[in-house]
Amino acid sequence: PDAAIVAQARERQAQLTKPAGSLGRLEEIAIFMAGWQRRVRPRLETVQAIVFAGEHGVATRGVSAFPPEVTRQMVANFNAGGAAINALSRACGAALSVVDLTGDGPSGDITEAPAMDEAECLAALSAGANAVNTQADLLLVGEMGIGNTTPASAICAQGQAESAGAWIGRGTGIDAEGLNRKRQAVDAALRLHGPHCASPFETLRRLGGREIAAMAGAILTARQRRIPVLLDGFICCAAIAPLQCADPAFTDHCLAGHCSDEHAHGMLLDRLGLRPLLRLDMRLGEGTGAAVAVQIVRSALAAHNEMATFAEAAVSGAR
Amino acid sequence: PDAAIVAQARERQAQLTKPAGSLGRLEEIAIFMAGWQRRVRPRLETVQAIVFAGEHGVATRGVSAFPPEVTRQMVANFNAGGAAINALSRACGAALSVVDLTGDGPSGDITEAPAMDEAECLAALSAGANAVNTQADLLLVGEMGIGNTTPASAICAQGQAESAGAWIGRGTGIDAEGLNRKRQAVDAALRLHGPHCASPFETLRRLGGREIAAMAGAILTARQRRIPVLLDGFICCAAIAPLQCADPAFTDHCLAGHCSDEHAHGMLLDRLGLRPLLRLDMRLGEGTGAAVAVQIVRSALAAHNEMATFAEAAVSGAR
Repeated sequence: PDAAIVAQARERQAQLTKPAGSLGRLEEIAIFMAGWQRRVRPRLETVQAIVFAGEHGVATRGVSAFPPEVTRQMVANFNAGGAAINALSRACGAALSVVDLTGDGPSGDITEAPAMDEAECLAALSAGANAVNTQADLLLVGEMGIGNTTPASAICAQGQAESAGAWIGRGTGIDAEGLNRKRQAVDAALRLHGPHCASPFETLRRLGGREIAAMAGAILTARQRRIPVLLDGFICCAAIAPLQCADPAFTDHCLAGHCSDEHAHGMLLDRLGLRPLLRLDMRLGEGTGAAVAVQIVRSALAAHNEMATFAEAAVSGAR
Repeated sequence: PDAAIVAQARERQAQLTKPAGSLGRLEEIAIFMAGWQRRVRPRLETVQAIVFAGEHGVATRGVSAFPPEVTRQMVANFNAGGAAINALSRACGAALSVVDLTGDGPSGDITEAPAMDEAECLAALSAGANAVNTQADLLLVGEMGIGNTTPASAICAQGQAESAGAWIGRGTGIDAEGLNRKRQAVDAALRLHGPHCASPFETLRRLGGREIAAMAGAILTARQRRIPVLLDGFICCAAIAPLQCADPAFTDHCLAGHCSDEHAHGMLLDRLGLRPLLRLDMRLGEGTGAAVAVQIVRSALAAHNEMATFAEAAVSGAR
């Protein structure tokens, strides 16, 4: 972020007709947006939401409450405008891009093989990078991929002190037996790949999936372009966990849209150093939590950009 | 709320293309709105925000960080469109009504006299009732009144087990000495009026203020008209605390927009049985927290009304 612009935006906040600090996190958000957009009065004209879809080899192991074909069915639903992210993107004024990676086939079953070979992982990262509208004022990324909480948990557990079980949750609503299968799948994947996850790229390639790597590529590109990012749920945050391990400042351009009901998301947000804007017990993915949070950013900028100062309104300051 | 409509709205939620319950509180909000509006697909076309302004006799006792004249200055700011609630109402698509009760003069100093006589309190309640657009799909109420956290704390403390000190906070940002003066003012008011607060009306009349009584009148009228209400901060919630004491179901038509940074607001929301939608460290009043929360309601209705069902989208259900 641009330190001079941040200072000017902070100075403007101090002059607006309200007790100092009384808009709380709305003030922080406005200053954050100003710094990354390099505008004292940041704007939110072009908001891009991208939903990435990918299939997972591990989905055949009974790790999800839903059958694997739902991923492609939901891509059709996105394209027809009928999914939650379609409705919520419209509600928040975001243009939705659907990036369908199911045509490349399911990723490898991470319990037996890497999710992707190097060329495939590069292609997925590039698909994410290329999907970003470089003119966007704010980017949100989400995903669809039946079975993808299993690779996400594996990515989070890799190299961490907590046991793998701490990172596993109910996903779309799996039962206790399914939860046990997820645990076994994550354990197997970590045994096979853990010793080889020496870089963020290798972690994403071996334990991830196409839509997961694509999200990482999009969020990385947004950073290079100084586009602020609203993160969504557990999978979205897991996608950047390896990058944040390598560079703790990586999430500086990110706001956490929400903390989902997926068991490990709160723990992951703590690790990423992010405080969520919303806690609405959501656990749908697709970018839905981030889409709801767009409106908070919009509110923050409306107050920051449109309010009168004490001088302009001839209002007395604090005694 | 209409039980048959609630059941139909719940049935619709179960058929939408998402894991059951995965939109969390967005689902609850949509069902709540359906029940009070008596529409299976509730709407949010007409959102009304009302900001009530009143002056307080107790403000001369140094209980606020700001001088008393700021109340009238801020009314001018509301009318000119430069306050936070103006910007946030525009951002959430609410029509803002400004109800200025400062023309009736400051309320009585509650440490020495009732805030209002009976005619004045009735006039304030009526001003609130009459300000409600009976065609509104959702109502939010807020306030401006330098010194009004002191009467709000007195209302909350009246007849409660917690000591008066538990209900006192920093308001617009008062220092430790001012906090002590607030504590003394609340104690004095409770000694004088406590034994006579036998009804919600008497509590509001003796301990409240014009804009506080007006908020109670507006929220009461909304209930009679089955208009759902988004509550704002500590003062707004304190205004209905006496009504909720008399009828624990009184807040059934209310959503808590946010939990503010004002010390006692969280405790008051617990007592009202309400779980806030937002926690953004806001403490401005005016209806600002409720205005930010409107967008969550809008998101909830967008998902509820616009999403495709599993059958419509030909998506497989859970196994």
